[in-house]
Order: sequence, then C-alpha cells, then structure tokens
Amino acid sequence: MSLIVQKYGGSSLANSDLIRNVAKRISNASEGDNQVVATVSAMGDSTDNLMDIAAQITNSPNPRELDVLLSTGELQSCALVCMALQELGKNAVSLSGGQAGIITDSRFGNAKISNLATNRIEMELNKGNIVVVAGFQGITDELDITTLGRGASDLTAVALAAGLKAERCEIYTDVDGIFTADPRLVPSAYKMDEIGIEEMLEMANYGAKMNPRSIELGMVFNVPILVSSSMNESSGTLIHEVNDMDMKVGEIRNRVRGIATEKDVAKIIVYSVVDRPGIASSLFEPLAQADISVDVIVQNSSVEGTTDLTFTVKQSQLNKAALVVKKVADDLGSGQIGIDEDLAKVSVVGTGMQDSPGYAAKMFKTLASAGINIEMITTSEIRITCIVKVSELSKAASALHDAFEIDFN
Amino acid sequence: MSLIVQKYGGSSLANSDLIRNVAKRISNASEGDNQVVATVSAMGDSTDNLMDIAAQITNSPNPRELDVLLSTGELQSCALVCMALQELGKNAVSLSGGQAGIITDSRFGNAKISNLATNRIEMELNKGNIVVVAGFQGITDELDITTLGRGASDLTAVALAAGLKAERCEIYTDVDGIFTADPRLVPSAYKMDEIGIEEMLEMANYGAKMNPRSIELGMVFNVPILVSSSMNESSGTLIHEVNDMDMKVGEIRNRVRGIATEKDVAKIIVYSVVDRPGIASSLFEPLAQADISVDVIVQNSSVEGTTDLTFTVKQSQLNKAALVVKKVADDLGSGQIGIDEDLAKVSVVGTGMQDSPGYAAKMFKTLASAGINIEMITTSEIRITCIVKVSELSKAASALHDAFEIDFN
Repeated sequence: MSLIVQKYGGSSLANSDLIRNVAKRISNASEGDNQVVATVSAMGDSTDNLMDIAAQITNSPNPRELDVLLSTGELQSCALVCMALQELGKNAVSLSGGQAGIITDSRFGNAKISNLATNRIEMELNKGNIVVVAGFQGITDELDITTLGRGASDLTAVALAAGLKAERCEIYTDVDGIFTADPRLVPSAYKMDEIGIEEMLEMANYGAKMNPRSIELGMVFNVPILVSSSMNESSGTLIHEVNDMDMKVGEIRNRVRGIATEKDVAKIIVYSVVDRPGIASSLFEPLAQADISVDVIVQNSSVEGTTDLTFTVKQSQLNKAALVVKKVADDLGSGQIGIDEDLAKVSVVGTGMQDSPGYAAKMFKTLASAGINIEMITTSEIRITCIVKVSELSKAASALHDAFEIDFN
Repeated sequence: MSLIVQKYGGSSLANSDLIRNVAKRISNASEGDNQVVATVSAMGDSTDNLMDIAAQITNSPNPRELDVLLSTGELQSCALVCMALQELGKNAVSLSGGQAGIITDSRFGNAKISNLATNRIEMELNKGNIVVVAGFQGITDELDITTLGRGASDLTAVALAAGLKAERCEIYTDVDGIFTADPRLVPSAYKMDEIGIEEMLEMANYGAKMNPRSIELGMVFNVPILVSSSMNESSGTLIHEVNDMDMKVGEIRNRVRGIATEKDVAKIIVYSVVDRPGIASSLFEPLAQADISVDVIVQNSSVEGTTDLTFTVKQSQLNKAALVVKKVADDLGSGQIGIDEDLAKVSVVGTGMQDSPGYAAKMFKTLASAGINIEMITTSEIRITCIVKVSELSKAASALHDAFEIDFN
C-alpha cells in the first residue's frame, strides 16, 4: 500500500467528460489498496470568468474578497470529481483548502503556507476514502480564505505530498511532461524522462509552465514530482534529486538540459542616474510598494558620475511601473526614461554548466551567428539568460537547442 | 443607530449592474450610522447551472458533495457585493455561512440550524464593516459545508436577524411584496401593506413564494419581516405579529386575507385498501424513507371493510412515489392505483376565518358556480384548500378573490 498525491490542472477538468476521465485515473491509481489524495484546479477557464465578473464591478478588487471569489472554482471541481468517483463506486470526500488543514498567512492573493494540519485528511484516508482537495487555497488562523497565487494548485499538491510523506507527487496536465524547450518554438524539442530538481527550478523560473514555489518545496522536502499528461499514457518527466551517478550520466549525455523561454517581458531604462549610494533602493523600493515584480536588473559602469539603470518587468505591469519610475526619476537626477515592451527571455539551463567555462561564450556566439541582438544578460550558476526581441525568440531558442546538441535523447 | 438585516434574492443579483444596484441599496441602508448585515443568494440561475453540471456527471449526486458545489454560488455573490460596496467607499467584509457562525446538523441538502455563533459578525460590525453573509448555507460541527434547502437564503436572513436582535429583517426580491393572490392568475390581486405572521405562514406553505421555515422562525423569535422589491421603492409588505387592534381592523376589512395557489400537484389514489389498523403507516413509511413529501391525504369512509386512500405529491416526485406505492399495494390488499398529475391547489387564508362558520360553504359554492370540480379538500383553522384541475386554477382563484371581496384595499 502506498500513498500517492495527484494534481489535475484546469484544462484536464474543463467539462464533464474530462472530469469523468480524471475520476477514472484517480480510481485506477487507488487500485491495489493505494491511498490517493488528489488536488484539483478550477474547471477550464472558470477562474478567468470569475476575474471578468470582478472586473465588471471594480478595477481594484479587494484582495480578500477576490480570494473568496476565486477559491470557489476549485471547490466546484473538487465536488464534481468526488461525484464522478462515487459514480464509479469509489468512496470519496472533497475538502476545501481550509478543511484539508492548509493554514496560511494573510497575504491575500499570494499567501504562504505556514502550517499543514493533515489530521482530517488522514482520518478520511483511514476511513477508506479517496480525498479530493481544492487546490490553490488555504485558510488563515482567523478562518479567512486565502489563495496561494496563480498556478499554485501544484503547490498544494507538493505541500500535501510532503506533509503526508507520500511516495510521490504526480502533476497531471495537458502536456506530456517537461520538454527540452517549448515545442511551439523549437520543433525538435523532446520530452525528458527525468530532470534534476535544481535544473527544473531554473526552467520553471525562466518560463517552463510549472509553479516554481512548488518545485522549491519538493526540493526542501525531498518529494519526487512526476509531471505527465492527464489525456494519455505518457510516462511523463520525473523531477527528482540527482545523485552523483545520475550527474555523471547527465554530464556525458549533455551539460545543457533545456532551453527555457518566456515571452511576457518589458524593459525600462532610466538614463543618466547620479551614481551615489542608495540610488537603487530609491528606485526599487517604490516599485516593490506598488507590488511590481522586477526581474532582471542591469546597472552600467559609471561614466562621469552617472549611470544607466535597466530592468525588466512583466508587460502587464509596464504602464504601472513606468508611472512609478517617472515619479522618482527627478530625485535620481534623471529626467529621461525609455521603455521597450516587445521582449522575451531565452535561457540555457543545466547543472553540467557548473564550474565549466565556455557555455556563456558559446551561447552569445550562437545568437550572434543567428543575427540576434542581445539586449541584456543575467546568469545563475546553472543558467544563462539573454533578453532578446520577442520576434526573434523562436529563432534564438531553436539555434541554442541545436548548438548545445540537446536534440538527441 | 439600528441593526438591520437585509436579504437579496438571486434575481436581484443576476449581473454586475444588478450587483451594483444591490450594493447601492445596502450602502443607503447603512447611512446614519446604521449597522447592516446583508444576506445574498447565488447570482441569477447559477444554482441551476451548477445542478446541470452535476447532472451531467451523475443521476444521484452525493448530498454532501452537492452541498459543497451549490454553496459556491452564494460565496461568489457575497464577494462581488463586497467589492461593489468597497467601490462605493464602504468598508465591507464577506462571510461564508460557516464564518458567520451558522452551525447546522449534517442533513446535507436540507440542514437545520442548530446553533448561531454571532461573535465574528459582531466583531466585524464593531470594526465598522458592513457584513455580507452567504445565504442558504451553514457548517456542521465537523466543519462540513451544508445547505439549508432551496430558497433558504430567507432562512439565513431571519435567523441572523433573530440571533443579532436586529430591528427588522428586510427580504428584497423581484416582486413588490406579498399579494392577495398571484397577479399572473388573478389580475385584480393587489399588494398588501401588512399581513399577520400566521396568515403569511399559510400563504407560504400553500404557494406564496417565500420560504415557510423562515416565517416560522420569524414567528418564534418575534422578528418583523419586510418583503419588498430590490428594483424600485415599493413600501413592501410587513409580516408581523398581529395584536388585537390590528385583528379587529382585519376583521372589519376582510376576514379572508389572500388566495394562495400552487401548481405543482399530482395525486395518487390507492383503491380498495383493507381497512385495518396500521394501513396508513405501511403506505406512508416507505414513501418517507424514499424522501417523498406527501402533502394532502384523504381517506374515505370504509365501505364493506375496504377504503380508498388518496394523497398528493409534487409532480416531480410522482413517478418515484408511484413506484414505491406499487411495491406496497399488494400488502395493502389493493392491486390497483390511479394517478392524476395535472392538478393544483387553491386556498383561502385569513385569521378572521377562525371560529367563523360559513367560509368553507362559501368557497365550495363559489367554485361550483364557476363550474369547477373539487378533487380534494383539506383545511386548517385559518385556511381552506381545494385541489382542482390546473387548467381551472386561474378561474378558481379569480372567482374566490371576487367572492371574498379581497379586491379592495
């Protein structure tokens, strides 16, 4: 008997046929006395629909009330999946995030899990029930409903797998697993059978469609995560701690594991900033207060006491960010700012790159040969990221996928 | 400063414009330092839509899961109304049934309120918030979500008004108040300014569109209930305990207060039942076990040791009821049952009828003069009900409205 935690995304639950399909898969997983806890997202685009209704009422919905509103989508799919399981003759019970013991702080819209009280889930499992938990949500100590951030049903699943000491966490979605690059941009991209957890974290942070916090959580609690399709029998991709032998195989096979891409990038340049201590904080503090996430930051070397500060934000936050920057630009000694909104990020990721020189040079050369201009550069130990024009993203990703010979399995 | 509890029905909340309208009304009610607790139903026909999705998955949804599913509709409108109030500059907070302290038994789908813990509501009111509570739902001691039965948002409102000792409970809906008869059937029907709570209870039980349990609750806890329109400035109808002087006025004005009508009636006759003790229970116990509500029951006098048993059920439950009856008919000594599904109930209601003979005779004579056949009769102290063909309901109601001279204000 094992305990398995599964997660099904919204596109896997978009209508009653798909809900029945998910129930069948959960039911199969429970065969042979397995205990199953399934986490579900809201049906299809129901979260977007709820956002639309809220937008008809106000431009700035109160975060607490928005969480109450959005949390209902997961409750609905949770109840429907249980009904479908019961129709298959299985005992099943749905639990809201709060009922499942997911206790959070009160940062509505982006709450952090502070505690996990799994006693109710364990009680239901011991009664022989399959437990279906509403993803994406929790409850504060004051019993207020919170949500964990968009796409955070993954996080619910991994947190439950960690808290329940499950054998593994299975994330079912509408793709077959984690690919070496986005197949829509790089036709030769292929599904990986496994990936190291740190590589996956970089891939997720730099564009792969998975919640990065859930991968971090899996890393901290050593939970193996399988990402696979709810629509077919794909073997998926196993995200797990890489031991030395795997590492060796990885090195032999390929030091670059994948190409991560992300389209939603805009750039703001603040020209001729007086170069004195505290400049960066007087720019980035007001941005943080306005709840704007700043991504890549580049500061040029100072020329004659002034410097240019460049940073990227999501395109949806560009206007808001530009307003904030304009307000503080005078204080910074700069009257001039520039923006560029049609950008993208392309990153090469792989633990094999650690302590191995030459990857950055090869990346820049590859892009140059393809005639692609690099706007900004940022790196981590196992990742190199270039900001390029969005119109050149597909060409850039394909050239890098070829150059680093990722296209063999 | 007064404390007012309001309730807004689903048709008053069907889209974002209507939600804004409701927020405006709640906001107005809170002027002059009034404290307001508003209970809301699910938007428009969203409950029906949720029932439809459930029906696509199973013919017999698990009652616990159905409650989880249906309870989300009220949570959504609750959050949206709060957003609209905040947009008007008001402080507002939404509470689920559970958060509002509505504790119930675990009869899913038709739960009874067992306790009301108003501390959270009182805390929010003291903080200066308008409190918007999801109607129709509660929570068990085990923290499972329950619903209180269809139309039970009224019940939530009256229960909160009783528990919070509110000045009054205002039920806002899509009609101007309580009418002397259904205006679609009786064109001369008019809105009453007030009605005695016992009369209203009979009206509601026999067809007027209001949750009878909420009226009972108002009676027990002495909560005056105003039924009015959310769409205009109608003065509505006040449902309240009638004192002696009112009663006198009522007697002078009219002993019959209103005509209640209900269309959804079907009849089952079990012929030639052996007339021995226990016959009724051996028929009605299995019906109760099958969760079929039996309404009017008539047993003829025994002729040669056998009798005919006739009773009515809702049309939607007729097939299920007939199956149950067929199974037990043999044990009852009867092989034969008859059904008639196109029936309706018409009732005259008024406390003035108490201890005043002649009302029944006048009712029967009026129907006879109009050429309407009476299928069954049942009475209470302040009500006389006749079962007639549904095709003759409008004619019957109009004739009675005329005969009892209800058509003057």
